[in-house]
Amino acid sequence: MNRITSPKNGRVKEWNKLKRKKGRDKAGAFIIEGPHLIEEALKHNAEVTDLIIDESFRIPSNWHTGNVTTWVAAPSVIGELADTETPQGVVAIVQVTDKEMELSSDGTYLLLDGIQDPGNLGTIIRTADSAGANGVVLGNGTVDLYNSKVIRSTQGSLFHLPIVKGNLLELIPRMKEKGIQVFGTSLKGGIPYTSSQKTSGYALLLGNEANGVHEDLLASTDQNLFVPIYGQAESLNVAVATGILLYGLKVHK
Amino acid sequence: MNRITSPKNGRVKEWNKLKRKKGRDKAGAFIIEGPHLIEEALKHNAEVTDLIIDESFRIPSNWHTGNVTTWVAAPSVIGELADTETPQGVVAIVQVTDKEMELSSDGTYLLLDGIQDPGNLGTIIRTADSAGANGVVLGNGTVDLYNSKVIRSTQGSLFHLPIVKGNLLELIPRMKEKGIQVFGTSLKGGIPYTSSQKTSGYALLLGNEANGVHEDLLASTDQNLFVPIYGQAESLNVAVATGILLYGLKVHK
Repeated sequence: MNRITSPKNGRVKEWNKLKRKKGRDKAGAFIIEGPHLIEEALKHNAEVTDLIIDESFRIPSNWHTGNVTTWVAAPSVIGELADTETPQGVVAIVQVTDKEMELSSDGTYLLLDGIQDPGNLGTIIRTADSAGANGVVLGNGTVDLYNSKVIRSTQGSLFHLPIVKGNLLELIPRMKEKGIQVFGTSLKGGIPYTSSQKTSGYALLLGNEANGVHEDLLASTDQNLFVPIYGQAESLNVAVATGILLYGLKVHK
Repeated sequence: MNRITSPKNGRVKEWNKLKRKKGRDKAGAFIIEGPHLIEEALKHNAEVTDLIIDESFRIPSNWHTGNVTTWVAAPSVIGELADTETPQGVVAIVQVTDKEMELSSDGTYLLLDGIQDPGNLGTIIRTADSAGANGVVLGNGTVDLYNSKVIRSTQGSLFHLPIVKGNLLELIPRMKEKGIQVFGTSLKGGIPYTSSQKTSGYALLLGNEANGVHEDLLASTDQNLFVPIYGQAESLNVAVATGILLYGLKVHK
């Protein structure tokens, strides 16, 4: 068993760089924390390279850690690497792997144009997973998927479905060619989602919390939808709107 | 114009106590920050008592500040009172007022059993407002409504509909007597929400993020519903589930 006693250890310093986007991009790796997320990562064949555990942490017998290096570390080391105050005695280092997202004419896809809030992005991914979506595309200006708050808010869903970066202006016409209907969302135009005529496969395009979807993207969709507001709110939270639309379009097919 | 130059000013010290639940409960007041929330508070006749503004902040002409004391304060004072890093030059003190929530046989109500996350509570209130709900009841163990993160996440909706504290075990039978159908939510039992037979008025009962709705409450409802999970997620975020259910039950009436 490998032991690390000081947060000043060179390896810990390298791992620590993964707490920032720049460091993650350079190393092609990210940190996850807590037993639930790590179990999801291992179960869904994410490339977990290192497991850093507390002296008292017992690795569950159903964790397949064959290719994983395990380090027993002082609580100060785990505290240094973790973002939450209660990482529950375990953090892991995971390699970023390039995922393929196949476009299928009967698939369901989410296209995200500049989602900025980490909690929102994570919750949207969790919602996409719940609704059985086949992939999520992170367009320009969307917060980094491997931000610790995004990962936490996905509750493990980031390991369940393909999540890729993409240029939405290029992707939307390709989807339409494949027979995937593309729905934009907008407060200002379009039709109520309950009036949409959905074919089997579709993509749903959601926009930035303050500014919504870019005009040029809205102009390239098949149809733009809105969620009616019955009270005095100006808008819905974007993750809540995602849930209403993904589940609502299921019913209205 | 009243001026405050030091965060050590006695009045600022009193206001500062409103940043904690104990201080809010004692004074019966809370802090809101930023022009959008303050405008919503004033427009919807919340009892705003004090407006604390930056030297450079110009009070918009549509703000009715007749009964409000305005203080011009140093940025350090505003920074001290505000929770966000960008309060945009203005915070306000608002009195807690007892609200009445009328029970109507065709109303829509949300009952919250122990929602703990401030962002979730705020987003649920915003969603209830969007869906045109007639009231929200905060059951035992629910986070304080006047927590700054809750207020911010409501995006002003806390001023749009009645939000009251209540004992759900007592309230549910009273609602049923009034002809309001009460729907619980549970991952483990009940029927898919799309199969529910909704009468005109109903209440929807949502539970704690980790533990769901208490068993004794679930046992007292007319019917318990769940949102189907089509992918590999274990559950939906509670605010997202609220949106899916409130909008879904609208369609299925």
